[in-house]
Amino acid sequence: MKDVRLEDLPLREDLRGRTPYGAPQLDVPVRLNTNENPYPPPPELVADLTKAVEEVAWGLHRYPDRDAVALREDLAAYITRDTGFPVTAANVWAANGSNEILQQILQAFGGPGRTALGFEPSYSMHPIIAAGTRTEWAPTPRRADFSLDTVEAARIVQERKPDVTFVTSPNNPTGQSVPVDELRTLVEATPGIVVVDEAYAEFSSQPSAVSLLEDFGHKLIVCRTMSKAFAFAGGRLGYLIAAPAVVDALQLVRLPYHLSLLTQAAARAALRHADATLTSVAKLAAERERVMEALRGMGFQVVPSDSNFVLFGLFEPGAWQAYLDRGVLIRDVGIEKHLRVSIGTPEENDAFLAVSKEIA
Amino acid sequence: MKDVRLEDLPLREDLRGRTPYGAPQLDVPVRLNTNENPYPPPPELVADLTKAVEEVAWGLHRYPDRDAVALREDLAAYITRDTGFPVTAANVWAANGSNEILQQILQAFGGPGRTALGFEPSYSMHPIIAAGTRTEWAPTPRRADFSLDTVEAARIVQERKPDVTFVTSPNNPTGQSVPVDELRTLVEATPGIVVVDEAYAEFSSQPSAVSLLEDFGHKLIVCRTMSKAFAFAGGRLGYLIAAPAVVDALQLVRLPYHLSLLTQAAARAALRHADATLTSVAKLAAERERVMEALRGMGFQVVPSDSNFVLFGLFEPGAWQAYLDRGVLIRDVGIEKHLRVSIGTPEENDAFLAVSKEIA
Repeated sequence: MKDVRLEDLPLREDLRGRTPYGAPQLDVPVRLNTNENPYPPPPELVADLTKAVEEVAWGLHRYPDRDAVALREDLAAYITRDTGFPVTAANVWAANGSNEILQQILQAFGGPGRTALGFEPSYSMHPIIAAGTRTEWAPTPRRADFSLDTVEAARIVQERKPDVTFVTSPNNPTGQSVPVDELRTLVEATPGIVVVDEAYAEFSSQPSAVSLLEDFGHKLIVCRTMSKAFAFAGGRLGYLIAAPAVVDALQLVRLPYHLSLLTQAAARAALRHADATLTSVAKLAAERERVMEALRGMGFQVVPSDSNFVLFGLFEPGAWQAYLDRGVLIRDVGIEKHLRVSIGTPEENDAFLAVSKEIA
Repeated sequence: MKDVRLEDLPLREDLRGRTPYGAPQLDVPVRLNTNENPYPPPPELVADLTKAVEEVAWGLHRYPDRDAVALREDLAAYITRDTGFPVTAANVWAANGSNEILQQILQAFGGPGRTALGFEPSYSMHPIIAAGTRTEWAPTPRRADFSLDTVEAARIVQERKPDVTFVTSPNNPTGQSVPVDELRTLVEATPGIVVVDEAYAEFSSQPSAVSLLEDFGHKLIVCRTMSKAFAFAGGRLGYLIAAPAVVDALQLVRLPYHLSLLTQAAARAALRHADATLTSVAKLAAERERVMEALRGMGFQVVPSDSNFVLFGLFEPGAWQAYLDRGVLIRDVGIEKHLRVSIGTPEENDAFLAVSKEIA
């Protein structure tokens, strides 16, 4: 085959010179860079999931349920239990990771000539998915301490009138949650769709924004994922909770049969073992407190976290590599002088703290 | 929750009034409407896939290989074997069904201000995915007998200069393949990217367009799927074969970790059993010939098919429902006076032919 370079292809102009998104996937002893749950699935879950996959595998020659109704029913039951706010399958939509959910939201409510706004630093896929759907991105700064000034945020969205506003709670990569009464004021003030990204909700001490759907079904979407608390990052299952009309809207842009038979069966198995899996949440929250305190004790500046990761500093350039050289992979999220560490097992956290002590 | 209607939401304008894509998913005795392979996976494949899933399930708390390298290596080995043209993992990209592949192609090479052209009637997701990526769609008619006049097609693409041109071979829903020497002339003449959609290639008597990559790596993409010949519609695995630079381009628009650990493991298991699964291809091709001949014998007009489905007519309105009322679900693909039937097992085809005889 003749040699073809990227420059030889009629790539769309705004992609030229870009590099693919993604944290380094390196094989090191301690991986604390992508906010995964460090605890593998319990044996009962593996057994149940394997059995479920074996059962559906006989039907692999057929397309899966395009509407994934059974899975959405199970997700609705979990959300009802977790938040105390009753929802049904009609309120839930699922996709291959919350990234696909976010992409569908921007395909339906964003796109060319429309604007999405986020409070940065925040989840870096928000602007990337905005670019992928050709939605103009309006980055808006957080306070210097990375918390969200919701009064100022309300003023800005009223002024800029974005079609879609992202609010992450807890915010990745900084860790703070937004209290639900402040969220209410912000959602009330926002003219367009508000996406509250609750990827790390289970780790948070704040109640979910799901209860706000009672009053704001015409503009509020709450996104969640099974990647973090559910220890299901490899299974790729993101979902949202919203008014049924929002789910109808997303069905106009979703690719048909986007969720495989295996994904639907495996996610349902994972939900059946939610109680067992989610016991890790309390352990990780306790470890987070221990790690934050230890880092403070070493003289680091620690951003208060309500999630399963901690943003801390202040570093000179080269600190990320210094951790890596010592076998600990953490994340450079592009915030000057700061690095982000995911909370791992006590042993992984000890290893991380030992290296931190050297570097401090 | 207050009642919210779709009209109350700030949906983008071009989606208003649309309905979601998808064939009816009805529970009837004989389902011949979505070109699935009627043969379930063999027991050895189910056992191997189950074992593979059990093994990877212990790592479900971690993100999957973002680049799906092992799966792409296996797909490359299969394509090398199937087409005789040597390709490597660098030539292959995979996603959740070929729809996601097509969407990524249009995100990279189409989009606002760009045009995609297809020869209709053809795969109805091409214009839908064009709309989803805001790519202008330029429908171009086939001959009255649904075959593709490649000389005329070459003239049209030179005149219209689409950024992306879709050529399906065999064409869904009409069934004919394009001979590879005609494809060569067409690809040579086309100014932009040419996507040869070979979803049904294994059923075809014509060689694959993959060999044309030797000369046209700078503009040719060949798409395939495991949904049809591989009897893996439920597993959702589409892929493409192209120059490595094309794969690099798609990595700029793909959602990170789009392919789950389970999808990667299950598709690899299915590929290990390709020889067993693909024995169904010859059976289905023989049944296709039998069905076409029987339909002709009943006086139907039958479009010659090189695939696992047959387009036939001529019908008065109501014929699709008449089949359904008799327990046979086939497809109304929107071509006047025609219906499309997927080739099933001999028993399913007999049932279909019996109803056809009643209706003829």
